[in-house]
Amino acid sequence: MTRKVGIIGTGHVGADVAFSLVTQGLCDVIVLLDENEAKAASQMLELRDMAALSASRVNVIANDYNELHDADVVVMAVGPKTLLREDRLEELAETRAAVRALLPRIIASGFGGVILNITNPCDVITQIIQQTSGFPDQQVFGTGTLLDTARMKRVVGEFFDLDPKSVTGYVLGEHGESQFVAWSTVTLGGRPVTELAGDRVVDWARMESAVRGGGWEILQGKGWTSFGIATAAARLVDAILSDANTIYPVSAWDEKLKVYIGQPAVIGKRGIVQTLQPELTAYENNAYQASARVITAAINSEK
Amino acid sequence: MTRKVGIIGTGHVGADVAFSLVTQGLCDVIVLLDENEAKAASQMLELRDMAALSASRVNVIANDYNELHDADVVVMAVGPKTLLREDRLEELAETRAAVRALLPRIIASGFGGVILNITNPCDVITQIIQQTSGFPDQQVFGTGTLLDTARMKRVVGEFFDLDPKSVTGYVLGEHGESQFVAWSTVTLGGRPVTELAGDRVVDWARMESAVRGGGWEILQGKGWTSFGIATAAARLVDAILSDANTIYPVSAWDEKLKVYIGQPAVIGKRGIVQTLQPELTAYENNAYQASARVITAAINSEK
Amino acid sequence: MTRKVGIIGTGHVGADVAFSLVTQGLCDVIVLLDENEAKAASQMLELRDMAALSASRVNVIANDYNELHDADVVVMAVGPKTLLREDRLEELAETRAAVRALLPRIIASGFGGVILNITNPCDVITQIIQQTSGFPDQQVFGTGTLLDTARMKRVVGEFFDLDPKSVTGYVLGEHGESQFVAWSTVTLGGRPVTELAGDRVVDWARMESAVRGGGWEILQGKGWTSFGIATAAARLVDAILSDANTIYPVSAWDEKLKVYIGQPAVIGKRGIVQTLQPELTAYENNAYQASARVITAAINSEK
Amino acid sequence: MTRKVGIIGTGHVGADVAFSLVTQGLCDVIVLLDENEAKAASQMLELRDMAALSASRVNVIANDYNELHDADVVVMAVGPKTLLREDRLEELAETRAAVRALLPRIIASGFGGVILNITNPCDVITQIIQQTSGFPDQQVFGTGTLLDTARMKRVVGEFFDLDPKSVTGYVLGEHGESQFVAWSTVTLGGRPVTELAGDRVVDWARMESAVRGGGWEILQGKGWTSFGIATAAARLVDAILSDANTIYPVSAWDEKLKVYIGQPAVIGKRGIVQTLQPELTAYENNAYQASARVITAAINSEK
Repeated sequence: MTRKVGIIGTGHVGADVAFSLVTQGLCDVIVLLDENEAKAASQMLELRDMAALSASRVNVIANDYNELHDADVVVMAVGPKTLLREDRLEELAETRAAVRALLPRIIASGFGGVILNITNPCDVITQIIQQTSGFPDQQVFGTGTLLDTARMKRVVGEFFDLDPKSVTGYVLGEHGESQFVAWSTVTLGGRPVTELAGDRVVDWARMESAVRGGGWEILQGKGWTSFGIATAAARLVDAILSDANTIYPVSAWDEKLKVYIGQPAVIGKRGIVQTLQPELTAYENNAYQASARVITAAINSEK
Repeated sequence: MTRKVGIIGTGHVGADVAFSLVTQGLCDVIVLLDENEAKAASQMLELRDMAALSASRVNVIANDYNELHDADVVVMAVGPKTLLREDRLEELAETRAAVRALLPRIIASGFGGVILNITNPCDVITQIIQQTSGFPDQQVFGTGTLLDTARMKRVVGEFFDLDPKSVTGYVLGEHGESQFVAWSTVTLGGRPVTELAGDRVVDWARMESAVRGGGWEILQGKGWTSFGIATAAARLVDAILSDANTIYPVSAWDEKLKVYIGQPAVIGKRGIVQTLQPELTAYENNAYQASARVITAAINSEK
Repeated sequence: MTRKVGIIGTGHVGADVAFSLVTQGLCDVIVLLDENEAKAASQMLELRDMAALSASRVNVIANDYNELHDADVVVMAVGPKTLLREDRLEELAETRAAVRALLPRIIASGFGGVILNITNPCDVITQIIQQTSGFPDQQVFGTGTLLDTARMKRVVGEFFDLDPKSVTGYVLGEHGESQFVAWSTVTLGGRPVTELAGDRVVDWARMESAVRGGGWEILQGKGWTSFGIATAAARLVDAILSDANTIYPVSAWDEKLKVYIGQPAVIGKRGIVQTLQPELTAYENNAYQASARVITAAINSEK
Repeated sequence: MTRKVGIIGTGHVGADVAFSLVTQGLCDVIVLLDENEAKAASQMLELRDMAALSASRVNVIANDYNELHDADVVVMAVGPKTLLREDRLEELAETRAAVRALLPRIIASGFGGVILNITNPCDVITQIIQQTSGFPDQQVFGTGTLLDTARMKRVVGEFFDLDPKSVTGYVLGEHGESQFVAWSTVTLGGRPVTELAGDRVVDWARMESAVRGGGWEILQGKGWTSFGIATAAARLVDAILSDANTIYPVSAWDEKLKVYIGQPAVIGKRGIVQTLQPELTAYENNAYQASARVITAAINSEK
């Protein structure tokens, strides 16, 4: 009955995932874990202070890995010390080491649920988590291009003055520089975005770069990003906990390319139910393969 | 600041629209109107009894048409005396008379907002409301095939064991027997539904008839339908009140065919911002035209 | 992880409990059961039609008692054939027989969760359910005076032009004619209601009779009551499922008086955590005892 | 119809107020203003990125004071450069200057709504805002002891293992060191907290100091506080926008003591409808007066 979510890392992202879950009452227990135990304890107090002001009760505890043994989901939100780097792959060495150090503690708790990874570079770290944990690949996935897809819907929605929720379609590939908007999948009201534009001159490349660069732009203004990714993670947690079988673009295992990469997948209580690679144009297929190679190269960069 | 919604007719549908709005806190004031004033007053009391148990305050009042003068939306939910009829057009004579009798009272209040019509036969009654009120056609629309579309997503979602929210696409045409699923618009994860079915034998006609007959099936079991339509209407009210510019399939004025008919439209604070007829196959186009003729015939049946 | 709720009886009340739960996404699976299987199936279809229009996924199934084996809560919402009776105790013979016939099927499923009873006369039927099931008394409770308390908050809130949520206090005793407002517990902003009234002449008896007669008044106008009680039941289901330890006035076992009766109790995942009888005046204490005797008499009326 | 909220200051607190409002869909338009325009623009982008992932549409704009002219509420969330100071009154010189510089720009926009102040020292700054703006004192109020009250409910709730929402009562006085728990107002299930404790030895002073020091404790662990106060502000904004007449302890004008100070007040669309000072013991009355003197001294410290 109890929906229990562990969050590893209580920096901006991990804490805002918790804030979003408590605000919406999307789970019953949250376990906060951080190497900085004082920080995790502080976040716990803040989140508990919300209880008298929130609709549904969410119990928040901190700093006890054993509490993960019956958790349904663990959200990996370990951040690097430095955020303003040019390339998401640069963070790899640091976060890889952090994740490898943490996983044994998660597994030692007896945790048998789904691991949802946010830590960047998302695709690479997700793969490392799956390999290190030995969990089936369905049970481990990353937020991948879900935030990028939301950003694309925002950019397209603003162009057409429409609710971003009414834009369908996907950003695919790496959650990083090699990602791409699969324009052939983007529709509004059942009409392809290209056709809907009609006579208007659309600078698609500029739109795409607004999507790709969206995070970087935010980072420069406020020093970090968290609201978008926290909201995306909360949606995925809800899909897992309610066994919703909802389709979201996430970083899931691509059996053919042997890599974790952003693609539409069905999310249920055991994680990935199936992946649903959309029909792509030849150009998009190339972009997808190229993006997969970028991720693979990052994986191999260690050796 | 205040979001005010009038509901005309407090039978199952009108009352459940109010119940849904109060449960979700989607507006601030609801005005309930019914020729049976005792009934409207009862619904008011029930909805007020929820106040101590709901997150956001919604004030509910009843039986005063003057209160509509500053309402943002009026939901027309006048029902016929008999529900178990074979054809939705059959109800026409009765509900047409009721709506024509009520409109002058709404207009006399000074109401200048959006009229959202649920009363069946939806497309015909919507057109009659627009003509009788003299309101611009953008300001009057009907729930049309939004519920049918939700039903299609349920039927398709169940077939593929997916969250209905992840099914995109539309049911178009009349909210009645001549409606059709525009299968060419139906996609899941960016893939056309027909392609996703793969080797499975799909009885599309049977699926479509489960959509078209969904309301009838419910009607036979419980005697009326209301949860689905009330939820659909609440979504539309929310889109209007938050000026969301969300795309929903609704009964909107088709300038070419001179008829109110179910089609994707952008919904904002003044009603229909624009209609977005999806790209259809030749077969679907014929079905759309045929459905338009059925509605037109009903309109003309009076003369 | 999965929050599963069984609802026995899919008339107005049971169906509206489900409608409220689905609208708010307060559970993951609902099992609808009714002796009229066509009705339960219809309600299921209606509730499923909401899936594409709701925020969180709730799976709805029907007509399979075996599905209760891993349910967390069963809501008993069996109604009598006739609603417009003068006294709630009159319904007893009919609903007692219905509940006794149903319980073996619930228990045969292996169900081991909490039973939340709405069926009237609520206190008596709750006691019969506890006795027939043999469940510990903590595991069985009734909605009792929660709705009456919400009604009192509405009546007092309207008198002072305040949000009913800001009124604290309780209606205690039988969910029926012998109930009473425990005025000594009613405060607004930390001030006793009597003191807050100041110089205004308050007809407390009339206010109390508006509370007691609230259901009857609604019944006469619309033929049944359901929005208030459904909302109350949804709150209680949420408190159970999230193990909230929230205090609500419900029909709980009074160990001293050996009767189920409306009193404040702490609600958690195993049902009643503890009862918290408020400090009462001598007058209120007498009213409580008198109400207990009315319930006991009804229980004993069978012999 | 449109619910428009301005937020001045987009640091942790202001941004999290916006995050909470967007997550819950509690308003329709948010205007973000900050002297650091790049920061406000970043927060705007982050909040817009949520649109495709949220239930209701909230439009977010930034850096245009003119947009306040038709706002319903302005939330003042200007922070000091340094947070880890021992005494909230210390911040006064800095934030007083900031608020005085900003107010003319707000007023020049033509803004005529409610000003809700979060900026610390909350009571003093609220008074300065009222005086500087010349707005009626009902139209200006501060979050005051609402967060402290939520914290008290958390501390008491944890002691009794109860949902903090089930604790009634108030923290009164300054949102600062001289605040106090009005224990005589604290009840659970209609029973005074002191009586409920029964034979248990309760260290009330320690509990009170956990409340008073709660913010400081969080500050030390994470460097700032925001989730609790943002949630409190969101509740107040909702009460204003829905004209709820809900009672909350806020910093409101005390006509007798001539000071803004934390006390229960009724919140509606024009701000403070009335204040409702609870019945206090002599000891509590003294504490209240003493706290008022502390605030007055801070006000007078300028001269």
